[in-house]
Amino acid sequence: MHIAYLDHASATPVRKEVLEAMLPYFSEQFANPSNVYDLGSKVKAVVEDARAKVADLIGADPAQIIFTSSGAEANNLAIKGVAFARQKKGNHIIVSSIEHHSVLNAARFLERLDFEATFLPVDPKGLVDPERLAKVIRPETILVSIMHANTEIGTIEPISELAAICREKDVFFHTDAVASVGNTRVDLDELNVDLLSLSGASLGAPKGIGALYFNKKVRLMPLIHGGIQENGRRAGTENVAGIIGFGRAAELAKKQLPAKIDHVRILRDRLVEGILKKVEKVTYTGHPQKRLPGHASFCFEAIEGEALIFMLAQNGIYTNTGSACASKALKTSPVLGAIGIRADLAQGSTVFTIDGSNTETEIDYVLEKLPAAVDRLRSLSPIWGKQIPTYEENVCS
Amino acid sequence: MHIAYLDHASATPVRKEVLEAMLPYFSEQFANPSNVYDLGSKVKAVVEDARAKVADLIGADPAQIIFTSSGAEANNLAIKGVAFARQKKGNHIIVSSIEHHSVLNAARFLERLDFEATFLPVDPKGLVDPERLAKVIRPETILVSIMHANTEIGTIEPISELAAICREKDVFFHTDAVASVGNTRVDLDELNVDLLSLSGASLGAPKGIGALYFNKKVRLMPLIHGGIQENGRRAGTENVAGIIGFGRAAELAKKQLPAKIDHVRILRDRLVEGILKKVEKVTYTGHPQKRLPGHASFCFEAIEGEALIFMLAQNGIYTNTGSACASKALKTSPVLGAIGIRADLAQGSTVFTIDGSNTETEIDYVLEKLPAAVDRLRSLSPIWGKQIPTYEENVCS
Repeated sequence: MHIAYLDHASATPVRKEVLEAMLPYFSEQFANPSNVYDLGSKVKAVVEDARAKVADLIGADPAQIIFTSSGAEANNLAIKGVAFARQKKGNHIIVSSIEHHSVLNAARFLERLDFEATFLPVDPKGLVDPERLAKVIRPETILVSIMHANTEIGTIEPISELAAICREKDVFFHTDAVASVGNTRVDLDELNVDLLSLSGASLGAPKGIGALYFNKKVRLMPLIHGGIQENGRRAGTENVAGIIGFGRAAELAKKQLPAKIDHVRILRDRLVEGILKKVEKVTYTGHPQKRLPGHASFCFEAIEGEALIFMLAQNGIYTNTGSACASKALKTSPVLGAIGIRADLAQGSTVFTIDGSNTETEIDYVLEKLPAAVDRLRSLSPIWGKQIPTYEENVCS
Repeated sequence: MHIAYLDHASATPVRKEVLEAMLPYFSEQFANPSNVYDLGSKVKAVVEDARAKVADLIGADPAQIIFTSSGAEANNLAIKGVAFARQKKGNHIIVSSIEHHSVLNAARFLERLDFEATFLPVDPKGLVDPERLAKVIRPETILVSIMHANTEIGTIEPISELAAICREKDVFFHTDAVASVGNTRVDLDELNVDLLSLSGASLGAPKGIGALYFNKKVRLMPLIHGGIQENGRRAGTENVAGIIGFGRAAELAKKQLPAKIDHVRILRDRLVEGILKKVEKVTYTGHPQKRLPGHASFCFEAIEGEALIFMLAQNGIYTNTGSACASKALKTSPVLGAIGIRADLAQGSTVFTIDGSNTETEIDYVLEKLPAAVDRLRSLSPIWGKQIPTYEENVCS
């Protein structure tokens, strides 16, 4: 059986070079980087070297990088850390309605305390409108968080424009770039944001390591209080091997990104054209141009996305129905709801995320197997063939 | 040069069997355990197997274990998670004054919000007095957190007695058992606590993985909000390899604990007797009997602990001056202050933490090198030989 793993947004194998870089730091150079003696300071130096590499990938100063255990933790640290530290200035935060759960639920947590949150709508392609953002900023607004690229629909937001609006009004701007770092260009000089979350797993580092960039204006209340690791901003003994792997993965990602973008874009376009040609009644979700180069997302009418995923997996094809953590949490994706997709159509959500290691043969294999799987599921569907309003009629704009 | 690594409370090498168990889960079985397809569910099953092993080590139900990124995160989740979830019942928490920074600083963070914290004193051996605890519990007290064993002075607290007092008054009881799990017997049936923190690194799992046990009565507000990982109690893609390593390490720890306790106790007693015999003006801190079997802590008069550590490290002997994260944070240890050690004597704090892999030869090597190092540093000290009140005169009791 062929294998076509096209779910890289969920998980990506640790790269060979990354694992090699990590291995000496489990059993040999095992000391605690906080220790003052030579064994500790040697490990500390390697951790700082990794920090510089992660910083370099996005054009940051290494002193402005905090290592966390995941992108979700970085998002929580950004949202709650700024909220608790800036509480005297104001109590209002703004997030888009298509943020990752870690941003949405951090905002909802703050609402239970003395904060207010605005959930900003997006257009049918998933874009946040800068004018709309400008209108909801109040004198008491302290933070805006809008993701760089959406995992479920691939749309890339106009971050530099949105951040500029916030900068003018002394509102901090955070972007969740977990889905985009390593998959598209993410450069702080261009984006000009105050905080940015990223994750090692997206780059071929192991699961369990992430980072938050913050600029020098930002004061943060720690999420994990305790010792003075990460300059007092994140307590707990460092995940040394994970950090070293993240550094090596960042170094590789920086070097290989331009070629990767070209490669995955060609494969993605081949997949999208093939699916739209071979399958009827399918909606390509997200923005057709302003999207991650390796990201293709669809809603197939009259299909349960999870059933399609199982059927494809039986053929060695691995895809997703949205963000991995959402897949078990909710019957209907809030992201698809926010872009105006009908609930029944949203059920048929299927997301393909392509990596540099994927091949044209794999894409062609998907194009061979997918139409039959869709036909088979539709033949079992009680709603297939019934009169359903088309996508365009239902989009709220 | 001989090597005697006696700083296992700071860091412990990853065990060979642990790394072997982890290796397949970096690049081969790399799927996201939240994914519904076979690759994901296979990884999920291995994560659940590891959870059962960690639970088994302390006698817990696997469903009551939440994996975290460290003991510090587990402590933060316990303190803040209970405080935010029980806020309607009351706003008062109690912690001992010798807790780990992650407990103390989490409590101080809550004080900035609408909570009150009581920092309970300890006696000169580091023990919390159950009667004293009973007296400071108020109707609005929702949580008490007292560590199982202290990293700096080794003292083991009378947890089951303290927990029983809380249980009677419907106050949740948390214990930080990071220093003790794998080093002494930690059994939930005996302790009868509501929440318990532990860390993988203490057992020979890698850095970056910890866990919180909570019983069925406990509701927790997540510290890291987001997806539904860890049953909605801790978001973020799981550190799969770290979790698997933790499971394997817990399995080994359970099997080997009785023999390890006997082994390290003999070495510890040999070290303590040797030091007290060969070095004058030294105080053995903590409780002489109720302490971790592999833990020996001293304060040498007229010495800077950090200078002694550097000098010992030049001889291949690795020790600490307190908890690793405290070592750079504070000039004087708050733990030693809390047990009534004079500030100048506390400067000479040196902690030895012995593991199953240490040998009698290593202990004898320390006993050979340490007295000369102490003499050398004292010969350079401006206060050595001056009239200083003895330890006993200064202890507050």
